[in-house]
Formats: sequence, C-alpha cells, structure tokens
Amino acid sequence: MIGLNTDLYELTMAAGYFESGKAKQSATFELFFRRLPKYRNYVLSAGLAQVVDYLLGLRFEEAEIAYLQTLPQFQGVSPAFFEYLRGFRFTGDLFAAPEGTPMFAGEPFLTVRAPLIEAQIPETYLLAMIGFQSLIATKASRICEVAGKRSVVEFGTRRAHSPEAGVLGGRAAYVGGCIGSSNAETGFRYGIPVYGTAAHSWIQSFPTEREAFERLQTMLGPATVYLIDTYDTIAGAKLAASLGKPLWGVRLDSGNLVELARSVRKILDEAGLQDAKIMATSDLNEYKILEFAAVDTPIDAFGVGTDLATSYDSPSLGVVYKMVELDGRYTAKFSEDKHTMPGSKQVFRFSDHDIVACSWECIGCGPDGQEAPRALLQPVILNGELVERPMRTATEARAYAAECLKRLPTASRSLFETDKHYPVTYSDELQELLARAQDENRLLRC
Amino acid sequence: MIGLNTDLYELTMAAGYFESGKAKQSATFELFFRRLPKYRNYVLSAGLAQVVDYLLGLRFEEAEIAYLQTLPQFQGVSPAFFEYLRGFRFTGDLFAAPEGTPMFAGEPFLTVRAPLIEAQIPETYLLAMIGFQSLIATKASRICEVAGKRSVVEFGTRRAHSPEAGVLGGRAAYVGGCIGSSNAETGFRYGIPVYGTAAHSWIQSFPTEREAFERLQTMLGPATVYLIDTYDTIAGAKLAASLGKPLWGVRLDSGNLVELARSVRKILDEAGLQDAKIMATSDLNEYKILEFAAVDTPIDAFGVGTDLATSYDSPSLGVVYKMVELDGRYTAKFSEDKHTMPGSKQVFRFSDHDIVACSWECIGCGPDGQEAPRALLQPVILNGELVERPMRTATEARAYAAECLKRLPTASRSLFETDKHYPVTYSDELQELLARAQDENRLLRC
Repeated sequence: MIGLNTDLYELTMAAGYFESGKAKQSATFELFFRRLPKYRNYVLSAGLAQVVDYLLGLRFEEAEIAYLQTLPQFQGVSPAFFEYLRGFRFTGDLFAAPEGTPMFAGEPFLTVRAPLIEAQIPETYLLAMIGFQSLIATKASRICEVAGKRSVVEFGTRRAHSPEAGVLGGRAAYVGGCIGSSNAETGFRYGIPVYGTAAHSWIQSFPTEREAFERLQTMLGPATVYLIDTYDTIAGAKLAASLGKPLWGVRLDSGNLVELARSVRKILDEAGLQDAKIMATSDLNEYKILEFAAVDTPIDAFGVGTDLATSYDSPSLGVVYKMVELDGRYTAKFSEDKHTMPGSKQVFRFSDHDIVACSWECIGCGPDGQEAPRALLQPVILNGELVERPMRTATEARAYAAECLKRLPTASRSLFETDKHYPVTYSDELQELLARAQDENRLLRC
Repeated sequence: MIGLNTDLYELTMAAGYFESGKAKQSATFELFFRRLPKYRNYVLSAGLAQVVDYLLGLRFEEAEIAYLQTLPQFQGVSPAFFEYLRGFRFTGDLFAAPEGTPMFAGEPFLTVRAPLIEAQIPETYLLAMIGFQSLIATKASRICEVAGKRSVVEFGTRRAHSPEAGVLGGRAAYVGGCIGSSNAETGFRYGIPVYGTAAHSWIQSFPTEREAFERLQTMLGPATVYLIDTYDTIAGAKLAASLGKPLWGVRLDSGNLVELARSVRKILDEAGLQDAKIMATSDLNEYKILEFAAVDTPIDAFGVGTDLATSYDSPSLGVVYKMVELDGRYTAKFSEDKHTMPGSKQVFRFSDHDIVACSWECIGCGPDGQEAPRALLQPVILNGELVERPMRTATEARAYAAECLKRLPTASRSLFETDKHYPVTYSDELQELLARAQDENRLLRC
C-alpha cells in the first residue's frame, strides 16, 4: 500500500493530466536543492536504493482507489482514470548520482524521465526519502571527519522522527561513515553492523551494580561494555576494573566527559587493562567531539544519538523536484527567488570544480591530455527495469562516500560554513537554454 | 516484522534477563522528558494510538530470530531464549495520558507495567513514536494558536524525515490543531481531511497558464485553487480573476507575501470575487504568521510545510523511558544531571498547577468544596487487552487538545519562552520515596 503515500495534489494532477489527454506526454523531472542547508558546505547523497524499491513497487490497491473515489477532489473524475490506476506501473527511466556523492546547489541527485503521470506521482516520496537520508548521511560524515580514527556508532533511533526514520537514519549514517547503528532492524534489512549491550535499566534491575556487571560479562565475554555511570562513575570504573578480562571496555553517559575519561583511563590502566576501551555517549555532536580532540581526551569511540538522528543543527534539506522538459519543450518556473533551470542536465565533476550542462553535452571530451571529468548521473532504471542488479549495497556506498569526501577541498570539508564555495558553473549551452525559455514564457503567460 | 524495530541492546538485555531468571519479574517503566525542548512552554502528547497498535502486535518472526542468532552478541545465548521470542506477546498494562494532553517536565506520558522483558523491548519504539508525534503536535498547536481563525493545513511530507514520518506527522499536526494534511495516506489511514489541488508542474505542463487554470477549474469546480506565481503573481491573479466562478481561491507561494496578498485581494475584489480566498505557502512558521497578523494581511489560510514537518526551530524532544519499579523495589538512576524519580506515578492536574505523586496516592480527594483534579494517567491496556474499544480517534484527540490548550495559562501558551513556568510540584510522599531510594542505593553500589 504505497500508492497513496504521496501528497494528494500529485494524484489530483494525475487525474487532471489523464482527463486532459496528457497521460502519455513524456516528462523529465529533476531532484535538487537550491541552497545548501545552514552550516553545511556539501550534502552527501543517500536513499537511492529505497527510491528504486519504491519506483519498481509502486502500485495502487483496490482499497486505496476506493478511498480516492470518496474524496471531493475526485468527484468529477471519470472511471477510466481509476481503471488506469489499477494497472499503474512505473515504466520510465531513472538516472542518478551514486549514493555517497557530495552534491552542491543546483545539481540533480536524480532525473526521472517517464510518462507525465508516472513522473509526477513519485515527487513527494522521492523528496522525503532522498532529502532525509542525505541529511543524515551528511551529518554523519561531519561527525566522522572530526572523530578521525575513532569509531562513531549511530545511536539515535529513540529521538528519530518516528521508528521508521530511525531504521533509515541508521542506514544513512552508515553511508556517511559511521561503523554501524544501534538499530537491529537497520542491521536486518540492510546488512549493516549493529551495536549495543545494556542500558541503565540493566544495572538497576540487579540488587547490586557488581551483579549486573558480572552477569553481562558472563553473557558477552569480550564484547562486554560496562555502563559505569548509573550511580557513580568513578566507583563504577573501579568496579569494572576489578572484574578484569575479558571485556571490550566501558561506557560513559553523563557528567564531564573529558575529566571522567581521564580518570577512568587511569583506573583501567592501573588495573592492567590498557586494551580496554572507553566509549562516550550523551548528547554528542561534531562540535563537542572537536573539543574532546582539541584537549586530547582518551575516548576511543563515540555513540551519537539525537544530534545525528535529527541533524539537529540543520534539520531540513530544501530538496525540490521540478519539471524541466515536457514532450520536447523546455520548462521552467520563474517565481521570485525560486526560479528553475530548464532542460535535462548532467553534472560533470572535475578534480576541483563541477560544470552543470545540458544532458546531451559532452564536457571535457576534448583533446587528449585534458582532465576527464566524471559524469555524475548514470542510468539506474530504464523502461521500468533495473539496469544493474543487484543495486550497490550500503557498504559499497559508504566506501564510495569516503573516497569522494577525501577528494573534496579542505574548505568544503570544514565543520564551519565557508565563503569559499565549491565552484559549480553552468555551461554556455545551459545558460542559452535558460534565456530562451525565459523569452518563450514571456509570450505564453496568459 | 516489527520485533527488530528497536535498539539492539533492548534485545541483548532481554536475553540477559532471560538467562538470569528475571524474565518474570514485574517491571514498571515511565516515559517522560526531563526538560522542555527549546522555545517550548509545553508539549502536546500524541502518538498513543500507534503505541497501542505496536504493543498489541509485537511479534518476532522466524527470519528476525534467525538474524539475531547470527549476531556476535547472541552467541552465548541459550536456545530457550529464541523459543521464548517465538511465542512473545505483550501481556502487561499500559497507562497513559490521553492524546492531546499538554505535558510538562517530569510528567509521565505513559507507564508500562509488565514482565521485565516485555517492558524493556518496547523502549525504543515508544520513545520514537511518542517523541516525534508530540513534537509535531506541539509545533502545530503553536502555529494554529497564532493563525487564530484562519485555517492551517500541514503540507510538509516532502521535508519530513522519511515518507513514513510524513504520514505520521500529518496525523500529529491534525491532533495539534491543523484542519488536515496534504498527505493522502494520512487521510486513508487515520480518517483525517486531506487537501491539495495542483503544483507548478501542472501550470508548466500546459502551453499557457490560462489553459492550465481552465482545465483545473473544469475538474475541481468550487474546490479550485489557482496557484498564481509560476510566472508572475500579479498577472496570474488577474488571469484567475478573469475566469470567474466557481472557485475556492488562489495560492501564493513566493515573493513578499504581505504586499502580494494585498494586491491580489484588490484584484479579486474588483472582479467581484469577494468570496474567493487567498492561501499562502512558502517556508511559513508561527513567527512569520505572527508578523502577517500584526500588519493585518488579507490571507485566509496557511499551508505550512518544512517548519511544521520537522519542528525546525526545535527538532527534538528529549523523551526518556526509565525503570521506576522492579518486583516491588523502587529503582532510580542517580547519574549527574540525569537522575530519575523512583516509583510508579500519577499526575494530578488542577486548574492552574499539577502535582506529581506516587500512583497509589489520592491527591485532592479531600473534603467537599475542594477542587477535584484530573488524574492524567488512565488504563489503556490491561493484561495485554485493550480496555476501551475503539481507541479515541485523531479527531477526538484534536478536540481534546483544543479544550486543554484553552485552559492553559497565557504565559504557557506564549510563542516565546517564558520564565513563568507552569507549576509542577512533587508530593511529599514521592519526595520521601526519592530520599529512601538514594539511601538504599548508597549501600548497594558495589
């Protein structure tokens, strides 16, 4: 039942297109953002695998169609449209940048080319899926950049915007560089490593902290992580140290983490547990981890929850999905501050800049010796069929993201907003197309 | 397949409880927040209906169990535990404040009393569901408070944190006071009014704006909303005015909304369309709507997207789920800045203050003539069975929320953070319980 998981107006328009004899017009839509989100110098693309699943599985069940027929907006719609919905399949094309690609303003993450209705209905779902996962992958990449060699685990499902956002957020955080997630469903669905041992309720459930620790160690052996702050962190650390091996280490979840990590490190070392690690959790983010690094805090791993799962400092990515071509006509929108560029596009990525061009252009295909750019948008679905099976896994996307991020200029990788924007220009041909579309639209407004 | 939709450590602990012979201990957990989110003076509870569905449907399928058996954390776990998961059912009790109740720091939204494992596993899902829906219901209530008699529609699925968050966010926004959502699935699942007519792509898909408008009107009649800013808002308004009735009105989606609304109102009025309404969209929130109201802008309805769907200015609610009793023992956590209050509680709401007390206390049951408070937590599930069928609908929750919000003091309803906090105190008996638990915990730490 996913057909209705969209804005009603996509379906109202679908009915209108159908009734106006436009169902078979060939449309091209592009998904992009106009401006970088605040505090971000790039956005890491994620969510493509789920978009593919959605497009290939998009159907309208009888109960969904019956519901639409009850709505006031559909009272003037002919039975033929509902019959059309019964047989609905996505038969078009999807071109997309691979998951894990750093994207900049105006660059399409994906292009849908399909019969008008088939291209229109997916708008809402695609925006929500790509927008959300890209937001979280981006946040994760910032945290992992600062953490350096220390591991980061995504721990945020409980603060995610719904349980399902938690599952998908765990996936996106992994693409962005986390070593895994606390969410079991994320592991189950996407083959991503999952982590987690015990909460305060475990400690509280035993008459003594000692018994709680001992029981955990019996079960987990070398995977044991003692959560040591339920009653008193230093006492908890001494108790953990006294129990000896095997253990992975301890977790701190409250108080002054810098001071506590130093004291706990000392306690563990003095007990001969130099290999035992310290994990920190408790409202962490990239800014706090930067502070820890600055004062050389002995923390080996971070569990990041709320700030990562909600991209707290920048909780929305303004992705839009705009029609750029219809039946060979170039279309654009000229609303104040919100205009769009007409025509299907390609993004050519050079080592230190991008050129956005018309999709039929071949930029950088000049004489030998010139640097060959990467064309970001590649076919994923053609005529309703997946081009390459199986899809790239989250693990492959994660490796690709790491490789791409390494190549970004230092300014773009900075934690703080930079004035030195990654250079993205439009090709001459694309600019001419815009001028032409503007002229034409002056004529056809009314 | 919802059993795995939780943090792995809930399941690791479940295995540990099982192996330690604690499976049948009776536990009580409470869900609450320690501090109000920034810029909020109350939080409106929402999401209870989905929590009930989850608890009553919680199962572990064979594939989920097989997955757990592959994880390193479960290698030391006996087959009996997996057999237990196969037959897992929630057999406990759920007490909760009705959806639409304004909540304050330290007050339980819900209490789960069940065998320890059954109470532990739901933690993550309950936090994500109640936390998210309450966040959005709260944001919606702020926007609707400022909009006053003008309608607010939730338009934000595309910017929600995943498509499913869009569906649930539409529900929560409705509970908070919106008249409906743009999300068709929200309407289908929860019986909530849905709205939506056409986007810019509709306008662009026709050779002229006139044809696009005429086609829409043919289909929608009196429900027609002309989106007039695709090319030029004033020209679009004149065109809409020239087409005459029937129509609902026009929508503005860019530019200076105050100036444009005034010009467009004049154009409509001069064409004799005094009844035609003006709807505004475009990155709105309660602060912008307050500005519109201050200068008496002729806008009749608002569509609010990103800011509502993400609670942009305050995107997370720090809900926690803490064990307060286990087999008759009162439990608490004494971590720095993160301590909890032991014992199962009740919230007694008087007309202008709340008293949080032990669940067995009867506050305000004194001599006649005293004000009788409302006890917020009421039984919803007892011994795994729903107490009252059917559950209160979203429409009923919305009416209840409106009634509760009206009764809040002016300071609490302010858009801006107030120092005049809603008075919440702890009963003497609860404070004594805390002191006792602290004493006991001093003895049992190691």
